[in-house]
Amino acid sequence: MGEFELIRQYFLPLARVRGSHSLVLGPGDDCAVQRIPPGSDLVFSIDTLVEGVHFPPGYRPDFLGWRALAVAASDLAAMGATPSCFTLALTLPAAREPWLRDFAQGLGKAAESFGLVLAGGDTTRGPLALSIQVHGLVEQGAALCRSGARIGDLVVVSGTLGDAGAALDYLDAGNPTADEKFVLERYHHPRPRLKLGVALRGLATAAIDVSDGLLADLGHILEASAVGANIDRARVPVSPALARLKGESALDYALHCGDDYELCAALPEAGWAAAPPSLKAQLTVIGVIEAEPGLRVDGIAVSSGSGAEGFDHFRRAT
Amino acid sequence: MGEFELIRQYFLPLARVRGSHSLVLGPGDDCAVQRIPPGSDLVFSIDTLVEGVHFPPGYRPDFLGWRALAVAASDLAAMGATPSCFTLALTLPAAREPWLRDFAQGLGKAAESFGLVLAGGDTTRGPLALSIQVHGLVEQGAALCRSGARIGDLVVVSGTLGDAGAALDYLDAGNPTADEKFVLERYHHPRPRLKLGVALRGLATAAIDVSDGLLADLGHILEASAVGANIDRARVPVSPALARLKGESALDYALHCGDDYELCAALPEAGWAAAPPSLKAQLTVIGVIEAEPGLRVDGIAVSSGSGAEGFDHFRRAT
Repeated sequence: MGEFELIRQYFLPLARVRGSHSLVLGPGDDCAVQRIPPGSDLVFSIDTLVEGVHFPPGYRPDFLGWRALAVAASDLAAMGATPSCFTLALTLPAAREPWLRDFAQGLGKAAESFGLVLAGGDTTRGPLALSIQVHGLVEQGAALCRSGARIGDLVVVSGTLGDAGAALDYLDAGNPTADEKFVLERYHHPRPRLKLGVALRGLATAAIDVSDGLLADLGHILEASAVGANIDRARVPVSPALARLKGESALDYALHCGDDYELCAALPEAGWAAAPPSLKAQLTVIGVIEAEPGLRVDGIAVSSGSGAEGFDHFRRAT
Repeated sequence: MGEFELIRQYFLPLARVRGSHSLVLGPGDDCAVQRIPPGSDLVFSIDTLVEGVHFPPGYRPDFLGWRALAVAASDLAAMGATPSCFTLALTLPAAREPWLRDFAQGLGKAAESFGLVLAGGDTTRGPLALSIQVHGLVEQGAALCRSGARIGDLVVVSGTLGDAGAALDYLDAGNPTADEKFVLERYHHPRPRLKLGVALRGLATAAIDVSDGLLADLGHILEASAVGANIDRARVPVSPALARLKGESALDYALHCGDDYELCAALPEAGWAAAPPSLKAQLTVIGVIEAEPGLRVDGIAVSSGSGAEGFDHFRRAT
């Protein structure tokens, strides 16, 4: 079976997800065509996952399909955008049908869960890697940026941090415990905070998704906003599973590891006080934006910004 | 120097190209934001180039930068779209500064030439490959598709065909002749027919760019339009250089080889007769759309459709 037949069989169903997605023309032509609703801005981001760098060799293709789209969609959450459609650039050593079937299944589940329809793509031969570009929509001028944090704003994060980072220690566990299963699920099936991102629009002054680690990603907000921050270490949310698995070092995972795809945001104290309880329940206040540049944990300066604390591929490579 | 510094130094200048590009927010945040002008549709396509598959190992980085953007922009030409912006997903074994500098230079020249501004991207470590997504704009509903060809329409192509395909025979030529230099230039620096694509809007009933070879790509139009065609072999335009280099087999290159990134279109005879001379000068009539399905050359059926004649990576791999 040739490339075109394989693509048709496994990927075209992802282009026919129910609902309105503003796509005028989907896969199969030289380009796709999207009609942006009046009053909306197009919000888009591209992310690459490479075998052996972003996921282990031989990684389950259904997990890979989910993870790849989740990682990309998380950037839409960070902007407060409503998901719309995506393109897939898939590079494979060979077109093995079982692999493609399972990959498309995981990708399709994620697409349906996140509200994303496949708009187009390119399938090529080469070392296993994939790039996904996601498109979202946001009211004109309402996209959440990294650059709006103001002195006195509260720093909040969603969910718990460090679980997915700890999961790397258990990827090969033959018979994982319940706690190990919990963090493994957080790694394999991240759930981008899409609804939370939309809810933060008009409330947060700045937002980012935690993909490189809390310190690194908060550092990006501080740099873009030309401010500093102090984090209260004891307030950083850690799951009971991570606390049991890692004891005293659980907080190190929470501060330094990425891959949880939670949101970190800054918002004014008055806005926080007036926020609906349903929103507050999803967030934890962990610190405050300060005038003094740099990032501090319990008042002690830590390295931040420029990804120094996070997963900087080239720094690891050299 | 870390990933972020390298990206800033070499790629951020490509985000600051002069002119209006409808970008509200460029690189540096979780997403880019584009505001589509009222009355316009967004037209977009993603293309991947992999080392050793789409370009030779050790290929000059400045040539690669140009080629990668040209290949992607050619899809905009095929839709009649005006170029707007692009994203770059670049995967590199190591962040070598001279390579990045030269690559960014070639990419920047192409971006300026085509009218594309860098909107965002992702830079990762891994085997050399890159995916580029291009964004263009077109009047709502005016995008040229593959599916509109009608019986009796003329089949036209731009420029000459087969040059870039023949160039593959001379990539290692130490001291190329003038003819070899001509075809090599066609391979290294394809020039997508962006202005021609815009000019064909409202005139052509269907269009495609010739990336896989004339027979394969015309086959895509025929399949999408549910028609057939007959091509007059003697009319297929071949450059004097290719004719001198390849003699009688020059036409085989023109029919089967891709990489020239010319346009192939169908248009009604009356429209062709009334077309401005400046447009006619860029096109050659090579055949006619017929009711009988399939593609014929001088009345003899040839294989077409589903990329069977073109560069189908997976068919080559298996």
